[in-house]
Amino acid sequence: MTRVAAYQLSPRIGDLQYNLQLSTAAIRTSVDAGARVVVLPELVSSGYVFASRAEAASVAIDSDHPLFECWAAEASRADAIVIGGFCELGGDGLLYNSAAICDGAGVVAVYRKSHLWDREKLVFEPGAEPPTVIDTPLGRIGVLICYDLEFPELTRLLALAGADLIAVPANWPLVPRPAGEHPPEVVAAMAAARANRMFVACCDRLGDERGVRWTGGTALISELGFVVAATAEPAMAIADLDLARAREKRLGPHNHALEDRRPDLYRNTLHARELAPRG
Amino acid sequence: MTRVAAYQLSPRIGDLQYNLQLSTAAIRTSVDAGARVVVLPELVSSGYVFASRAEAASVAIDSDHPLFECWAAEASRADAIVIGGFCELGGDGLLYNSAAICDGAGVVAVYRKSHLWDREKLVFEPGAEPPTVIDTPLGRIGVLICYDLEFPELTRLLALAGADLIAVPANWPLVPRPAGEHPPEVVAAMAAARANRMFVACCDRLGDERGVRWTGGTALISELGFVVAATAEPAMAIADLDLARAREKRLGPHNHALEDRRPDLYRNTLHARELAPRG
Repeated sequence: MTRVAAYQLSPRIGDLQYNLQLSTAAIRTSVDAGARVVVLPELVSSGYVFASRAEAASVAIDSDHPLFECWAAEASRADAIVIGGFCELGGDGLLYNSAAICDGAGVVAVYRKSHLWDREKLVFEPGAEPPTVIDTPLGRIGVLICYDLEFPELTRLLALAGADLIAVPANWPLVPRPAGEHPPEVVAAMAAARANRMFVACCDRLGDERGVRWTGGTALISELGFVVAATAEPAMAIADLDLARAREKRLGPHNHALEDRRPDLYRNTLHARELAPRG
Repeated sequence: MTRVAAYQLSPRIGDLQYNLQLSTAAIRTSVDAGARVVVLPELVSSGYVFASRAEAASVAIDSDHPLFECWAAEASRADAIVIGGFCELGGDGLLYNSAAICDGAGVVAVYRKSHLWDREKLVFEPGAEPPTVIDTPLGRIGVLICYDLEFPELTRLLALAGADLIAVPANWPLVPRPAGEHPPEVVAAMAAARANRMFVACCDRLGDERGVRWTGGTALISELGFVVAATAEPAMAIADLDLARAREKRLGPHNHALEDRRPDLYRNTLHARELAPRG
């Protein structure tokens, strides 16, 4: 069993030092609670609702920034893995909405969000590379960021690459939903978990920022597609997950979640724009 | 607005005449309630839990069978479209788990289930063709059958081909789920609806058959991914759906459900078996 925590919190827009302390404290609390995998929200270093690209640039960091040394120091106390979002200044001078995967020694990998939401398109470059799977001592972890999760191609891609767990730093703007329903982003995560028989750990935000209300939809989801821990508070969702169960893709004697696929029938899914009729 | 009904009922295994009357009566009741699209369960002509291929063959029919004349006669009273499952005897002598799309004049198209569940693999051939979209006066309708729905590639394929509504004849064997949750197959349908901004109408079965308990999970789902009508009874789920809303794929000024896709990043989703590490 691997104890996984997703720590829902509220960074302050443009306040790198505050956010460093807030996120590091969240990792500390999670590790103290026994977590070996800790997921933090999207852009937890910087906040989200930037007024301009220049404002985002003012808090953009690269993967050598001391923030990650702080994260790694907490991770090292328990050989934990931390996944959290940050506003990245690329070596090319461009900004990316990224997530770092850290272990006790520092940043292991960086994923750049490939599907940008709303005004992010005015601030960030989309990532040029598909998400990959990081093989850690705790299991194989894939990372998606927020709106990425709404593209089942990406969750499938990570499952085919062997992911046991997908960590999803997110900032979900609140949308209306019927009483009793999960946030629709959680529904997407539940469906992806079940379709691929893998675990999904979504870490959302709380509160408001410049008129945007966040959903507070943090949820840990089993490989059967059910929510096993959630929180609507500034707190952890935490659970012991048997990540090895994600390696069993058989669904009884005659079925297999991945081998039952028919790639011969799916070719047209790669040629979207030509096919779709309009209006 | 288009009134859509999914009529959840319990066919009798191997009793074609009974099932003809049952399914025709369900269409009649639906049309009398104002439905213009009527969805019936998978294999409604035959039942599901066959003891052998020979038993299935004994009730297999082709698309010229009088059953479809009965369906068409009811459809013709309201220029309705009927989608229902049947045990098909192909021109090749093989059996298919198929669905017919009928209008008032008869069978318009037949879709053969391409992803077979469990012992279906011992009875049926998988369909060799991907699902297609039928352009009807009521809107563009795609058809998937039961386990097909669990492959987001297929719902995406139909969305890219312009489907406004996916009709899903199903026989969902009951699986455990936490209190308050939708059946996981409904969660898959909700996620597919939202990801693709299209409507999904799932028609399930009720009761037991040879030791298999059905879920009774019939549900109509909006293009926002929410259940708008459901039933756990031998009854219709029925709702007025504005199918034209499925033609609006924009998600605000900067986003589009289909054009935000990155097919350049998805190529490896077509090469499953080579990529996935084992064990």
